[in-house]
Amino acid sequence: MDQFNQQQIGALSAFVEPDRFSTGQSNREMHTKDISPHQGKLPAGIIWPLTTEETSAILVYTYAQGIPVTPWGAGTSTEGNPLPVMGGLVMDMTRMDRIIAIRPADLQADVQPGVFRKTLNKNAARAGLFFPPDPGADATIGGMIANNASGVQTIKYGATKDYVMRLVVVLPDGRVIHTGGKAHKSSSGYDLTRLFVGSEGTLGVVTEATLKLTGIPVVHLAATVTFETLEAASKTVAVLMGSGLEPAALELLTPELIALMNREKSLGIEEKPSLFCEFHGISEAALKETADLAQELCRDGGAVTFKTGVTEKERRELWRARHEAWETIHRAFPGRETIIVDAAVPISDYPEMVVFSQRQLDEKKALGFVFGHAGDGNLHVVMVGDPSDEREWTALEEINDTIVHRAVELGGTCTGEHGIGIGKRKFMQLEHGEGYDLMKQIKSTIDPKGLMNPGKMFL
Amino acid sequence: MDQFNQQQIGALSAFVEPDRFSTGQSNREMHTKDISPHQGKLPAGIIWPLTTEETSAILVYTYAQGIPVTPWGAGTSTEGNPLPVMGGLVMDMTRMDRIIAIRPADLQADVQPGVFRKTLNKNAARAGLFFPPDPGADATIGGMIANNASGVQTIKYGATKDYVMRLVVVLPDGRVIHTGGKAHKSSSGYDLTRLFVGSEGTLGVVTEATLKLTGIPVVHLAATVTFETLEAASKTVAVLMGSGLEPAALELLTPELIALMNREKSLGIEEKPSLFCEFHGISEAALKETADLAQELCRDGGAVTFKTGVTEKERRELWRARHEAWETIHRAFPGRETIIVDAAVPISDYPEMVVFSQRQLDEKKALGFVFGHAGDGNLHVVMVGDPSDEREWTALEEINDTIVHRAVELGGTCTGEHGIGIGKRKFMQLEHGEGYDLMKQIKSTIDPKGLMNPGKMFL
Repeated sequence: MDQFNQQQIGALSAFVEPDRFSTGQSNREMHTKDISPHQGKLPAGIIWPLTTEETSAILVYTYAQGIPVTPWGAGTSTEGNPLPVMGGLVMDMTRMDRIIAIRPADLQADVQPGVFRKTLNKNAARAGLFFPPDPGADATIGGMIANNASGVQTIKYGATKDYVMRLVVVLPDGRVIHTGGKAHKSSSGYDLTRLFVGSEGTLGVVTEATLKLTGIPVVHLAATVTFETLEAASKTVAVLMGSGLEPAALELLTPELIALMNREKSLGIEEKPSLFCEFHGISEAALKETADLAQELCRDGGAVTFKTGVTEKERRELWRARHEAWETIHRAFPGRETIIVDAAVPISDYPEMVVFSQRQLDEKKALGFVFGHAGDGNLHVVMVGDPSDEREWTALEEINDTIVHRAVELGGTCTGEHGIGIGKRKFMQLEHGEGYDLMKQIKSTIDPKGLMNPGKMFL
Repeated sequence: MDQFNQQQIGALSAFVEPDRFSTGQSNREMHTKDISPHQGKLPAGIIWPLTTEETSAILVYTYAQGIPVTPWGAGTSTEGNPLPVMGGLVMDMTRMDRIIAIRPADLQADVQPGVFRKTLNKNAARAGLFFPPDPGADATIGGMIANNASGVQTIKYGATKDYVMRLVVVLPDGRVIHTGGKAHKSSSGYDLTRLFVGSEGTLGVVTEATLKLTGIPVVHLAATVTFETLEAASKTVAVLMGSGLEPAALELLTPELIALMNREKSLGIEEKPSLFCEFHGISEAALKETADLAQELCRDGGAVTFKTGVTEKERRELWRARHEAWETIHRAFPGRETIIVDAAVPISDYPEMVVFSQRQLDEKKALGFVFGHAGDGNLHVVMVGDPSDEREWTALEEINDTIVHRAVELGGTCTGEHGIGIGKRKFMQLEHGEGYDLMKQIKSTIDPKGLMNPGKMFL
């Protein structure tokens, strides 16, 4: 749907104040690109709701009219999740950005979906609390929920799914439902909350969420550990994960990526296969004990150096550099796009996957960087190429396919944290088999007209 | 459905060996009672499948024939979840009890649904691992999944839902689907695993599960803390939960319950409002530090005594006594049945709920004992009465209703861990509103004939 007719423009305008509905060209264009290589279709218009009631009224109308609706957050998806591929209406949730309450006594926050992750954490910090899921980007909470986002601290703290307790969701036909509750435990009925978390906006629009928060750790300690081989580094990961030391981060980096980060960010880190670790504790003494044990395990695993004692400033820079790995790669090759492998496997298979993936790059002489949330078995390969160079781009796609097929064979997934969006729909049947049919059945039950974020998740 | 016809008996017998299908009276009677006050209807027969393939073949047949099917585990439900209220076929999963693999390097186990929790833990212990969810009863894994079971250590380790990574499920029509995977993280498609966890067998039969395991803590320390008032005890709970000390158990007990436990179990515990705590750590030193901090916080909260240093034997007895609280109450009043309140609320509302509930008992002069998984805001009141004494039983039901209404008003739930089953169906509309309708829609999509565990969860 490229254009609204005059009647539709009139109706949609009536739901909101004048500055919150637009059919202007620049607004429409701004909503056709996230950070993925995918390109959305120009939507017919953008609407910015402020309340659940407005959202509901708009969806009652679009449902009756058969207008496709695509919810929009920060636009930081790496898989095209918020791109309007069928035009229609983009529902931009970023003005619905109120932190309704931070309730320290319950370790909870009630927020609207347009709140940015970093904004929530800045506010929660005043109560000594934080919302742990930490994708690199400053995503909105709504986007994180839609995508079940996670990041470097997920091995200790869990993913977004582990922090969503309650949702207000407007269904495709405008019905408003409440899922879950504010109690920490429940065995009451089907887990609708978890059905919506990770559903990528294909089942409805989240207009409010109650999130679990957790105490900011009293002390933290970062360590960089180098190894002679990538295999030794990745094998040590499983040992650390089984040790009970509960690392708060356990990241694998290849020498090639560190070299690039050193060059672009002046980091001065040794360019060897490395683990970046972090540990959180209740006291310096307890943490020292943890670090000593970790060092012993790393040495047993063949570590060459185990460096702690970095200053707080250095620690922050280290993690910022890691968080910005994708941006750093992207910026280092101007005018090129990236394909990001996001496969995840059981941790015992991680060493094989790492070596397998690096070999794919080497054999095909492709430009790419291997790293990942090793403690979760989540592997990233950021491959760089030019989508208009069909031969080159197809080769990168093939590497992605090969790695995903291997991950699924090992009982893993095509996406540990980035979601399906547009680019990974082709893997759904492979990964889920008959389960994929059940997902389609559920989609049809809740969105029989197929209007909510069409063209995502399902082929 | 009271009886199978000869043709049905012939068909069902053909799916399994002779000793795995029965229409005998005693077998049928044994499958009409769990530990709840509910009474099932005599099923027409019992079948014991051994494989996914058998389960599928049986369900293809029962679906075509319109035969109700009720899956059965250990029969330890407190809410009548496995009782065949419409007769038909009981599918007893207890012979499908193979631990397929314990994979220490992945911190995972693959099991069949009939494996008992304690059996799994005995086997996992050889690899230094355990499956943390710990309802008092020795439930089957299938039952725990159906019910999203949890228990005293859930505050640190989470509920069953947090440990189920992958399921093989046979749908009501016999289709076999695989959900989830063996990777620790995934953002791939709808979370079907979580849809089945807690669905109480109303959407299909689990025939295999991959479970996350975790390392057995190196050291543990129990503490019993007494207070002058129930309110002071319950207020200290929120403080401990927000402290970052991550207690592994935090249980509230009233003097009345402790008195009963002392009498029945010769425990010799001080009969005051109490918290039973446990902490897990990586070393004695770290744990000592944790205990010192906890003691300080409890003192600030008005604790009279803070007793640690109990021997390992005493520690085990303490927790066994707590685990067996319901059995102890039940046995102390022979010939009576119990109604168990299982409401859960945000932890800041827990003190109010505790006092409110005790007051309900006092005002109505009802026989009941208040306790609970305080750290999760999960409140239990075990009320004792005679279901055939209508006045008495109705009074107990009314207390349950009053407490649940208050819990839901506070954003909580009617059931923190026991499930809906038969007895709590009446609260579903109250708690979930329009979400309840969506649950019904999902049920109809997956089980259009309403044959799977009928009469549970939905009114």
